[in-house]
Amino acid sequence: MDYEDTTLMLAGPVKIHPRVLKVMSTPSIGHRTSHFREVCLEIRDLLRYAFDTEGAVAVISGSGTAGLEAMLCSTLRVDDRVLCITNGKFGERMYEIASLYSQADQLDFPWGKAVNLQVLKERLDADAYRAVTLCHNETSTAATNLASEVGKLASRDDLLYLVDGITSVGGLPVEMEAWGIDGIVLGSQKCLAAPAGLSAVALSERGYEVLRDGTPYYLDLKAHVDRLGKGDTPYTPAIHLLLAFREALRMLREEGLRSRIERTALLGKACREAGRAIGLGLYPDLECASDTVSAFWYPDGVKDEQFRPRLRDEHRVMVAGGQGSIRGRVFRIGHMGVCSLSDLLITYAAVEAVLDKIGHPVQKGASLEAISRLMV
Amino acid sequence: MDYEDTTLMLAGPVKIHPRVLKVMSTPSIGHRTSHFREVCLEIRDLLRYAFDTEGAVAVISGSGTAGLEAMLCSTLRVDDRVLCITNGKFGERMYEIASLYSQADQLDFPWGKAVNLQVLKERLDADAYRAVTLCHNETSTAATNLASEVGKLASRDDLLYLVDGITSVGGLPVEMEAWGIDGIVLGSQKCLAAPAGLSAVALSERGYEVLRDGTPYYLDLKAHVDRLGKGDTPYTPAIHLLLAFREALRMLREEGLRSRIERTALLGKACREAGRAIGLGLYPDLECASDTVSAFWYPDGVKDEQFRPRLRDEHRVMVAGGQGSIRGRVFRIGHMGVCSLSDLLITYAAVEAVLDKIGHPVQKGASLEAISRLMV
Repeated sequence: MDYEDTTLMLAGPVKIHPRVLKVMSTPSIGHRTSHFREVCLEIRDLLRYAFDTEGAVAVISGSGTAGLEAMLCSTLRVDDRVLCITNGKFGERMYEIASLYSQADQLDFPWGKAVNLQVLKERLDADAYRAVTLCHNETSTAATNLASEVGKLASRDDLLYLVDGITSVGGLPVEMEAWGIDGIVLGSQKCLAAPAGLSAVALSERGYEVLRDGTPYYLDLKAHVDRLGKGDTPYTPAIHLLLAFREALRMLREEGLRSRIERTALLGKACREAGRAIGLGLYPDLECASDTVSAFWYPDGVKDEQFRPRLRDEHRVMVAGGQGSIRGRVFRIGHMGVCSLSDLLITYAAVEAVLDKIGHPVQKGASLEAISRLMV
Repeated sequence: MDYEDTTLMLAGPVKIHPRVLKVMSTPSIGHRTSHFREVCLEIRDLLRYAFDTEGAVAVISGSGTAGLEAMLCSTLRVDDRVLCITNGKFGERMYEIASLYSQADQLDFPWGKAVNLQVLKERLDADAYRAVTLCHNETSTAATNLASEVGKLASRDDLLYLVDGITSVGGLPVEMEAWGIDGIVLGSQKCLAAPAGLSAVALSERGYEVLRDGTPYYLDLKAHVDRLGKGDTPYTPAIHLLLAFREALRMLREEGLRSRIERTALLGKACREAGRAIGLGLYPDLECASDTVSAFWYPDGVKDEQFRPRLRDEHRVMVAGGQGSIRGRVFRIGHMGVCSLSDLLITYAAVEAVLDKIGHPVQKGASLEAISRLMV
């Protein structure tokens, strides 16, 4: 198995464009220079483009979880009552983190199902919360939550609205202002297709105003926002990752945010139709199926421990397994960033071949035909 | 000014070897694979080599400050009385972080001077502390603290001994066991000469036993140690930085820890003797001058805002300025990692030329002669 030459269809990290990879081998440079200040200022401006905001943004040398914690620990206070909506592993992670910094309640819905807005409304009516958290695109279930509708309910009660956009920003429509989002986080290795290790946060005006100083030190979001505003970082940043991140952001801007989102939507459609064409059952409800990642039930008798290793070893195609309670029962195909329909073709050709070989015959070529119909 | 072709003599980030840079442009790979598990396990073993320990180690996707916070927040408790020894900016940073998680007292000594052990002893005798913190190599002042002697006093009272080894581990002698160190942190972009963005922590048996779960989430050191023990990470790591870090650690092992430390000591000596040969005054006391970074007073009339930009723009040599209270009054030359006497030659030739040009005549070639005498 050659790990460096695969069709990488994980739910992140995703394929990195050669242009971005090239930047990673830049010789060592100092970070307290006018040169690097320009890098930081360009990242600030490009992040505003990616988040579609004029507000405060920050980049943090740490993965998506670091970004979530920076947002939550800097906006929440220990006495705040916070309602955390969960219907998957990453919503639950927000709840776990929020619990460390506030009085957090969990409002749990079944995995792969939409948030029941009526239930949410009743819960908000019944209690006096200061903030609501939501994972916009639940990577673990491949379901996209109705962040706009949740935002309306949060706005109605003037609640702080804090969103995990790790696998949505740059791939799905996100309207910070219209949806009333006060804080949202992205991960570098997801829709932006940059190397893993960075997260970024965008804040509404109110989101910025409520930032508090203090614990934790490294994830003090105010320090990160204020320093980036001056083209700087509070501590030594992951210099090479920032250079690569800038290049990936430049590529997003060149393609155009709207075009990237439309292209991602087409990939989502292609992935679902290809799966349906060979009889794969979609794990989440179709109405909330994500356009950046798809999850399918394994057909009866198909074992994860056979399927994915063979896909990888015999066809050099990497897809993700299930997480949490659906581990071993579903597989997930990521299709965000700079992934293309051609990548999906390669993936499904391998999926067909492996299913067939391990005793689950499929109509060879059916998924490929479904994808090719969308290639225009 | 070509920022990508400089002689980079900062106190970190430092020059990165082409072998390490090459790894940075590896195509995207998944981190939940047997392939990456091997990477993590090799890093665990190589870190034990670098820290010269058989104990627990962790790598954190975040800079040195993240590593310090992970160590302090995971070992200290809110009621603990902690004595933070400070004689520079980074000792002060440990104090600031420790203050967030415990009842921390500062024991401050003049910058560039050794810790007064008698004063320390009296302070420890007078109060009931649970832990002592020390910055082993104070990058801001280019002074190395007597970590062994402080360790003896900490051991005498059975105190937890927590050390910032960010610019010492892999460059200066560090004896965790003999000195009674319970926790120590290194930074990737310092003596290991890897890209910035990672830190690593090593713990004594007791250091591991006292780790607590919980806040902060991302910097929960127990999670990082335990997962690395299984070849894994608690959250998505900075994959490319880990690959490069492994390569840099392999290079350390190939050279040998002892040889790297001896070579670094020679560089320190060469840098000091070259400076003396052209009449530069060493900022720290000679008895505590560091072998990984040197700081010199600017001669009268030489301005930082003239000196370093000219060094950079006319000679493509980058050295560091002063920090905190000595900003503008000293400059610092880093000489750790894969830096060589040849790099020092290039640096001093430029230093001589610029000093001469801005009205501080020096005997041309005197510093170069001093360095060449050490080239054997």
